[in-house]
Amino acid sequence: ARIVTLPGDGVGPEVTAAAVAVLEAVATHYGHEFAFDEHLIGGAAIDATGEPLPAGALQACKASDAVLLGAVGGPKWSDPNAKVRPEQGLLALRAGLGVYANLRPLTVHPALATLSPLKDEKLKDVDVLFVRELTGGAYFGAKTRGADYATDECRYTEAEVERVARRAFELARARRRHVTSVDKANVLETSRLWRRTVAHVAADYPDVTLEHQLVDSMAMLLLTRPGSYDVVVTENLFGDILTDEAAALAGSLGLLPSASIGEGRTGLYEPIHGSAPDIAGKGVANPVGAILSTALLLRHSLQLEAEALAVEAAVDHVLQHGPRSRDLGGHAGTADVRDAVLAALA
Amino acid sequence: ARIVTLPGDGVGPEVTAAAVAVLEAVATHYGHEFAFDEHLIGGAAIDATGEPLPAGALQACKASDAVLLGAVGGPKWSDPNAKVRPEQGLLALRAGLGVYANLRPLTVHPALATLSPLKDEKLKDVDVLFVRELTGGAYFGAKTRGADYATDECRYTEAEVERVARRAFELARARRRHVTSVDKANVLETSRLWRRTVAHVAADYPDVTLEHQLVDSMAMLLLTRPGSYDVVVTENLFGDILTDEAAALAGSLGLLPSASIGEGRTGLYEPIHGSAPDIAGKGVANPVGAILSTALLLRHSLQLEAEALAVEAAVDHVLQHGPRSRDLGGHAGTADVRDAVLAALA
Ligand SMILES: CC(C)[C@H](C(=O)O)[C@@H](O)C(=O)O
Ligand SMILES: CC(C)[C@H](C(=O)O)[C@@H](O)C(=O)O
Repeated sequence: ARIVTLPGDGVGPEVTAAAVAVLEAVATHYGHEFAFDEHLIGGAAIDATGEPLPAGALQACKASDAVLLGAVGGPKWSDPNAKVRPEQGLLALRAGLGVYANLRPLTVHPALATLSPLKDEKLKDVDVLFVRELTGGAYFGAKTRGADYATDECRYTEAEVERVARRAFELARARRRHVTSVDKANVLETSRLWRRTVAHVAADYPDVTLEHQLVDSMAMLLLTRPGSYDVVVTENLFGDILTDEAAALAGSLGLLPSASIGEGRTGLYEPIHGSAPDIAGKGVANPVGAILSTALLLRHSLQLEAEALAVEAAVDHVLQHGPRSRDLGGHAGTADVRDAVLAALA
Repeated sequence: ARIVTLPGDGVGPEVTAAAVAVLEAVATHYGHEFAFDEHLIGGAAIDATGEPLPAGALQACKASDAVLLGAVGGPKWSDPNAKVRPEQGLLALRAGLGVYANLRPLTVHPALATLSPLKDEKLKDVDVLFVRELTGGAYFGAKTRGADYATDECRYTEAEVERVARRAFELARARRRHVTSVDKANVLETSRLWRRTVAHVAADYPDVTLEHQLVDSMAMLLLTRPGSYDVVVTENLFGDILTDEAAALAGSLGLLPSASIGEGRTGLYEPIHGSAPDIAGKGVANPVGAILSTALLLRHSLQLEAEALAVEAAVDHVLQHGPRSRDLGGHAGTADVRDAVLAALA
């Protein structure tokens, strides 16, 4: 299999290297051949080429089986007046690969419950799969900037809503058969389209229960009864906000992976944490989110379920027994955690 | 003073009646004259007149010193295909009164910390004042609905951002002199305008510290270090989501008040909870959010600070000693809580 790596900015290169080491170990143990091909994205790409996603990088991604991304962005490139920004590279990549469904699983490891801001009893049974629409909405709509005003258009077609809703219902079938669709249908026209379309798709899945929630209520319910949700499907911007909120429950943003998939053959895998410029280059970033992203890569792009489970079990073991990185209250560096995962895998 | 009441839907009439009783007691104790004038809004107005905010109601509001609102909406009127919706009445009221700054204070009463989903140590020092822009953004932008697509435009002018930012900085001066501005400047053009404009306003307040956060990070930070924020200013939709998330920290949505103010003389006061159709008409809704809204009304619209503090102290006493409504784990009804507040006031 051909895997493109896009280390990107900040801690991206550090966590991506650890994740690649894990994939290499999987290849050795299970007798696979993974060919890695590294390209530039984000601020690193802007510095080297002037563009946040050079054409060659996108082409290589499209020709690959899976893309493993680190993180993009940082203070160096965050002038709001800049014409070229690192995040544009990530958005162009998501659109270019057509990966419209962003899967963000959330579980709370029992050994880490003490790190969660939420009380223990709230964390019981938390096992949510967020399905965030990733290639539409205000992220990709028309923008204008006048002398003294600005606009962003949020736009959705029925087809865009339908395909991501179908993914959510399919995924719910393999889980607890419950879908919560989140919108702001009492205010937004796109949300009314969203709600109608999701309800329409639901008719094809009579074995799955559909519930609608408004985004403001959902932001509250994720805290008051997080254990009640199975699959949560929502549009791009609401998904961005709600998944970060939910990630806080896990005890550290550094733990969580994501998979972005579409109809095409190439999936995109990235930890949900950002470039964390404050700790970049120090060898202390938690690589678990990136490593768990390789498990999703093995599962969703390479159909290697046993290998995916092995990686997840190895991470579980390390979260249980240590070593722990700083975000988890420990002193271990990125390499220590990587080595512990490799040892548990062996 | 002339006060218009808009009880609205669901539990709105019940909590508004309790709040009016408190204002009447304040008038008696302190020798003021408050003239109350009740009008229709929301689903109740649709049922009676076909319109979610009859012209006469808006006119009465504009001619008043303050408006006390209950809640709008409910399942009866929530068909996403309906042409007329209760929420349109609320949006027309906010726009009609020009109340562009929605103040939502969040503190966690020590006696209620056990009800919060957050761990005790996280709740220490939580004292945040959200300032939500209330008359712009996607709530009021152009909407289209085609056969198979829909759009919502988010639009902000510099002037709209500047006036709400100024309010936030002014309010911060009377508090801990820290403003956190929340946007999504790495993706949205309106957020880049927002960030530039807020930074520009900050130059006039050298004694106040300004920090920018992205909305997804902020959704996380509100859980991981809620005690670090003083004044948080953000645009309409982000404010809707973040304030409901923050409200969950208080232990019940039923506790929190809000004040909406503009340049005009009339302020709008409402609890932040919704119409709670599941418990409407049963006499069990918690009136504290509505009662604390009257304290904000006394403070911001009538400049009666001593009276506002007296109402807040009375509520504090009741939260400490009971009785407690169901949402707080007790068995008291709306009238019991109202009577306890009245007794504490006397
Ligand atoms: C970096 C940014 C553009 C991105 C997003 O908003 O989608 C990030 O927050 C994410 O959630 O992957
Ligand atoms: C009822 C609804 C339109 C309203 C809003 O979204 O502003 C409510 O959620 C609020 O926060 O006051």
